[in-house]
Amino acid sequence: MNSLASPDFAATMREVAAAVETELERLLPSLDDPAAKLNEAMRYACLGGGKRLRALLVIAGADLFQVPRGRSLRAAAAAEMLHAYSLVHDDLPCMDDDDLRRGRPTVHKAFDEATAVLAGDALQTEAFAVLADPQTHPDAAVRIALTAALARASGARGMVGGQAIDLAAEQRAAAGQPLSFDEIRLLQSRKTGALIAFSAEAGAILGGAGQEARAVLRDYAGDIGLAFQIADDILDEEGNAAELGKAVGKDAAAGKATFVGLLGLAEAKAKARALTNSAKARLAGFGPAAGVLQELAEFVITRRS
Amino acid sequence: MNSLASPDFAATMREVAAAVETELERLLPSLDDPAAKLNEAMRYACLGGGKRLRALLVIAGADLFQVPRGRSLRAAAAAEMLHAYSLVHDDLPCMDDDDLRRGRPTVHKAFDEATAVLAGDALQTEAFAVLADPQTHPDAAVRIALTAALARASGARGMVGGQAIDLAAEQRAAAGQPLSFDEIRLLQSRKTGALIAFSAEAGAILGGAGQEARAVLRDYAGDIGLAFQIADDILDEEGNAAELGKAVGKDAAAGKATFVGLLGLAEAKAKARALTNSAKARLAGFGPAAGVLQELAEFVITRRS
Repeated sequence: MNSLASPDFAATMREVAAAVETELERLLPSLDDPAAKLNEAMRYACLGGGKRLRALLVIAGADLFQVPRGRSLRAAAAAEMLHAYSLVHDDLPCMDDDDLRRGRPTVHKAFDEATAVLAGDALQTEAFAVLADPQTHPDAAVRIALTAALARASGARGMVGGQAIDLAAEQRAAAGQPLSFDEIRLLQSRKTGALIAFSAEAGAILGGAGQEARAVLRDYAGDIGLAFQIADDILDEEGNAAELGKAVGKDAAAGKATFVGLLGLAEAKAKARALTNSAKARLAGFGPAAGVLQELAEFVITRRS
Repeated sequence: MNSLASPDFAATMREVAAAVETELERLLPSLDDPAAKLNEAMRYACLGGGKRLRALLVIAGADLFQVPRGRSLRAAAAAEMLHAYSLVHDDLPCMDDDDLRRGRPTVHKAFDEATAVLAGDALQTEAFAVLADPQTHPDAAVRIALTAALARASGARGMVGGQAIDLAAEQRAAAGQPLSFDEIRLLQSRKTGALIAFSAEAGAILGGAGQEARAVLRDYAGDIGLAFQIADDILDEEGNAAELGKAVGKDAAAGKATFVGLLGLAEAKAKARALTNSAKARLAGFGPAAGVLQELAEFVITRRS
């Protein structure tokens, strides 16, 4: 089956989450190895949870270009591995020092700190290994385009740079100088936006789409990435820990600049809605084929966790 | 200039170290960025030191196949970035907890722990970004072959897996069960051997060499990688901290299994010599063109630091 045929979006998300779980299970290194503990930690970090938004972006984007599901699932798994690595490292005591993630102990709590550092390291490597493998696409030019795009999104100029800016922002907040809207926007576009944009574009790369279609999907991702972060701040303000599976109110309590803090709750909600509308409008040229991406744009601001 | 024309090996090493330093300087992200501290830590970790053995392996290997120096320098820089990332993470308090590296404070000492984790993360990404860039080779198939080989060498089945086995070995040593020769050999082949093998093979990949030549270079690297580690253990036993630029006698004091501990000093020296001789014999088919690789095999067991 090569289209997301579920009758409703929640079912589509479950379908994709189940498929990418199976794919990750297959791709991650086995426990039958002298480094079994490392491999177990990699599996713990990647399996058994998460909304799999990045996987869904890859797969729904790839479906627009009739990419065989076997290929899009591999790219989706790579995006989820990269995301999982970033969470494992962000949760470390020297970073955000979180004990809970998706309702379970974080990797350094379930294992130990050294294993958490190494599991994150190896998950990053594995993401590149999966993209570089001929099973992802027979054409080397497509595989290297994916690899280059993932590296751009996730390095010092992308995700890791965003996390570094976030850490510096905490120190500024502690000194009474929280970030401005434009600064927090830049932080978000790198820390979470870059990998979301990669995920949205990956299917188009796999499908040999032209630069114009790729740019549309990147712009769509730019909108939903920011909407997602604003919604996160709203959930952090309004949500409860049981639904989120992590601590709430932490950012505000730390004096960190949040979109809610900068805009107020009402304006933050309006901004998130406007971004979702913009994201949906960008997809017009794809017609009904982009139905799942349309619903995904709605989901990022209506989700409860 | 596309051959290592220096009159003696020490001058060749200096020449390559200077060239790769310039290349790294050019490739690493600039300080003119909101993530300036991260980028500064990446530069601190990569620049200004090290024997650059991996870079020399890449370049001397590439010279066998008349690879333009601009290309081999990029692959050499990628190997050095990957190596630098591994050192930054291995030095962390939760891993080997080292304060000194190449005679300077380690990255988490010179900056902070969070920055050290992120700098290592971003250096890994950057290594893949460099290999994936068309400037490394115009043929996508060559670039993806390099990328895949680096991922294989450095992930859970390679370098990171080796470090995980090393951490487990320390716990076993503390419990009075140090590793056997075969176990420490496996550990070494993954922890340091895999990236050394990548470095030796990278030039052949860049030069479009056949599988036979690639296998010869991998086998050569297998010999010198093990010889290098045995020599390290000998230096750790006999050396002094000033020449090494790091603490000595630490492994033995920690009860860790070392080649010297397992074989005794005399047999360890004989084993290292035999491996160097084997490595040199493997290169016979390349004739005098492999002079630098011959000298490098000699260097790994005669070096003082």
